[in-house]
Amino acid sequence: MYALNLLPEQSDNVSALSRWLTPVLTIVACLYLPAMGYATPVLKAGLDTDTVTEAVALRDAAVRGTQAFHWVEKLTTEVGPRLAGSDAEASAREWAVKELTDFGFDRVWVESFPLPGWERGLETGYVISPYPQPLTLTSLGGSVATPDEGVEGEVAIFTSLQALEAAAPGSLEGKIAYVGHAMRSTQGGSHYGYFGRLRREGASIAASKGAKALLIRSIGTDSHRMPHTGSMRYDPDQPRIPAAALSNPDADQLERIAARGKMARVRLLLTPRFLGEVMSGNVIADIRGAVSPEEVVIIGGHLDSWDLGTGAIDDGAGVGITMEVARQLLALEKRPRRTIRLILWGAEEVGLLGGKAYLESRSEELRKHVIGTESDFGAGRIWQVTSRVNDQAQPIVDLISQLVEPLGIAPGPVGVASSGPDLTPMVSAGMPAFRFVQDGRDYFDLHHTPDDTLDKISAEDLDQNVAAYLVFTWLAANTKINDWGWPSTD
Amino acid sequence: MYALNLLPEQSDNVSALSRWLTPVLTIVACLYLPAMGYATPVLKAGLDTDTVTEAVALRDAAVRGTQAFHWVEKLTTEVGPRLAGSDAEASAREWAVKELTDFGFDRVWVESFPLPGWERGLETGYVISPYPQPLTLTSLGGSVATPDEGVEGEVAIFTSLQALEAAAPGSLEGKIAYVGHAMRSTQGGSHYGYFGRLRREGASIAASKGAKALLIRSIGTDSHRMPHTGSMRYDPDQPRIPAAALSNPDADQLERIAARGKMARVRLLLTPRFLGEVMSGNVIADIRGAVSPEEVVIIGGHLDSWDLGTGAIDDGAGVGITMEVARQLLALEKRPRRTIRLILWGAEEVGLLGGKAYLESRSEELRKHVIGTESDFGAGRIWQVTSRVNDQAQPIVDLISQLVEPLGIAPGPVGVASSGPDLTPMVSAGMPAFRFVQDGRDYFDLHHTPDDTLDKISAEDLDQNVAAYLVFTWLAANTKINDWGWPSTD
Repeated sequence: MYALNLLPEQSDNVSALSRWLTPVLTIVACLYLPAMGYATPVLKAGLDTDTVTEAVALRDAAVRGTQAFHWVEKLTTEVGPRLAGSDAEASAREWAVKELTDFGFDRVWVESFPLPGWERGLETGYVISPYPQPLTLTSLGGSVATPDEGVEGEVAIFTSLQALEAAAPGSLEGKIAYVGHAMRSTQGGSHYGYFGRLRREGASIAASKGAKALLIRSIGTDSHRMPHTGSMRYDPDQPRIPAAALSNPDADQLERIAARGKMARVRLLLTPRFLGEVMSGNVIADIRGAVSPEEVVIIGGHLDSWDLGTGAIDDGAGVGITMEVARQLLALEKRPRRTIRLILWGAEEVGLLGGKAYLESRSEELRKHVIGTESDFGAGRIWQVTSRVNDQAQPIVDLISQLVEPLGIAPGPVGVASSGPDLTPMVSAGMPAFRFVQDGRDYFDLHHTPDDTLDKISAEDLDQNVAAYLVFTWLAANTKINDWGWPSTD
Repeated sequence: MYALNLLPEQSDNVSALSRWLTPVLTIVACLYLPAMGYATPVLKAGLDTDTVTEAVALRDAAVRGTQAFHWVEKLTTEVGPRLAGSDAEASAREWAVKELTDFGFDRVWVESFPLPGWERGLETGYVISPYPQPLTLTSLGGSVATPDEGVEGEVAIFTSLQALEAAAPGSLEGKIAYVGHAMRSTQGGSHYGYFGRLRREGASIAASKGAKALLIRSIGTDSHRMPHTGSMRYDPDQPRIPAAALSNPDADQLERIAARGKMARVRLLLTPRFLGEVMSGNVIADIRGAVSPEEVVIIGGHLDSWDLGTGAIDDGAGVGITMEVARQLLALEKRPRRTIRLILWGAEEVGLLGGKAYLESRSEELRKHVIGTESDFGAGRIWQVTSRVNDQAQPIVDLISQLVEPLGIAPGPVGVASSGPDLTPMVSAGMPAFRFVQDGRDYFDLHHTPDDTLDKISAEDLDQNVAAYLVFTWLAANTKINDWGWPSTD
């Protein structure tokens, strides 16, 4: 596909370029696309060669440089950490509204929703005996505080969540449970769901055995003194006990101490606070469709982050990638057939609250959401496409896959009901799914740690993402096929 | 040299092995060493082929596995961080005395000395405006505290210590000086001396311009949210202002904020405390020389560490390597010609206090210290030998270099007056110098941070170090040459 590389080297001025390039590219496309075997796939995808040519030109310009990194830099510098429901998250919404308004969207608005507020406090841990020394840890998001004097107890060591679950009721009375289940790095991040259950549910399982606090090995793949936070929830039938994650080196240390066969006693002090009802919101910006404006294609990332880092890879990257995609499509003279909706989701980290709020506020128009996807797996390059669409829409997914293949992306499993976290409520409601899977081999090194900062991001990798999303978005917004597989309402 | 690999694979039982191997190796050596061109170098080095053969056998056994990692693991687990003058450093001395006594040294003792105590407190930093967010920082060792309410001020940005020095007196009145001088990774760590001056002297230079606090970019080469501590000193003629180091990502962030042209205001709270006089000490263990016991060869590492990590690479590694070297030499049936002295130095980090105390308590016997060296540059493999010895001793250094060459080590510059930090006072007093230089390309990623933990160490790399130190120590302790170049007393 790089045979179509007619753009001059390096330019940010997509608008001026597209003005003179469109006719040139159209001629090239008319001459060559049929010969390249695109004619039938393009027709089957409900598209025309103009649209495909435009997508290819956008793609090829993007790999030569985009402003995606610039938006991540701006967000993470000018706002920094953006905990769900915090003043900083509100600042991020203001920032986004201003930037998106400057881009010239047809409409930019915020849809607010309430959530229970929580903020981190002090968090310290010490091995009291047999080998006194500090431990580096962090409260899990949503954990209750310890008593003011802290909580101290003998540590009961478990090597897996399953081992904790198998402990006899009452057997942890007066003890602090430690679970050292260690996740491994995978390209697609598939271990997270499995190992993450320890973080999400571990406290109540430990409480059900009598434990007075839970310590876990961080759900992370690095070996730095960086504990990984992340959301947890309490089973309403169990006592709410404080829960914290040790960094991997600290988890190693506690396990080494325990392996010496001497009873380890640990003291924890955690002072997080619940703040009552606070507000979050989704920032939404539309490029209005020229033919079927009521039909919507969603792209986006989430605006909130955990408080420890500056939310660069989670999810400044997704915000920056999709802001840039929307900006470039806005700069085209041509309007898409249907509406392209950029959603910068709020309060993703604390339970996909933005995604849930968006779904809840929609009824009949829900099924007008033709397709949607979220970029929320870091700043690595995309390597795979997954989807769940009907037979009619499969040719669109196939064509998108074909067009992004020169970016190093290949089709992955079909029938995968995932469009990224904030689309989960809608996909669960039956919405067709599409996802670009990024290379996440280092994602869980940084995820939910203080180390989630801008220096971990390669601008070139973001550009590759932008190139792929431009292809997806432009084709999805212009295909005549508007039923990608919502289930029948009969 | 690996032609002499006659030892069976893997064994920790050096003593038993050496019992039957010595005669075998001696025969091999008598037959082959002259043919291999060693006869003349061995004679010129004041040695015999038996000693060389023993050194080679020790070396080759060491690369197949030693207990060096075990000692590092034990120290960093059972004691953890060991700040100079702290109870933990005292525990480390107790630990070392017990272990070394168990090894069977002829004599194990502690030489105590006083020092001014200092301990870290809270340390927080915030950008107040224009973009409110937290900063990750740590107090420099020996810094005074801020007032209880913290210190707040506009930040004056300097890109180098030289730029700070060039600022006009009074120009920083009411401000917080930030200096972003960034060191780079080098194999031998040579940037540290130059860039480290910012940490050591920066506060008083900033104070001389009127600054009320100093923030520096960490003297470190990583990109993690890990600020690097380390010692500083105050010029008695300047006001003592608080000083802290930002992690590299935080320094990047502050520079990005400042680059937006808006005045940045920062608030710092540091609560370190001075504790009055506390005690440290050197742990010393002798393998008494059979012929000239009053003559001494020193090896060792320092027992204290900074408080943030567990002192694994700085300097658990040096302790573990040299403990293992001494343990293996103790296990030989043969005693060395002169005394091998293992010194586990105290309070190195806060001004080489162990090295100074050792020197100060010695007078005539000082010149009986034939040679000495310290392992204190992490846990990487040795790649270079440097030395400063007289012409008479050069053949010993040459022979050591030749024998360690199969380990990937080559001779480096001669005339280098360095035997590691704690020998500096003695080398400054005229003592000959010898140093194995480790590969330190990642040393300043970890140095003086919370990340200085056991997981960063490769047992195999330690074994290579042990192999080299065995060669050095055995040859240095057995050569007939006892004047390596102390200057004439005439």
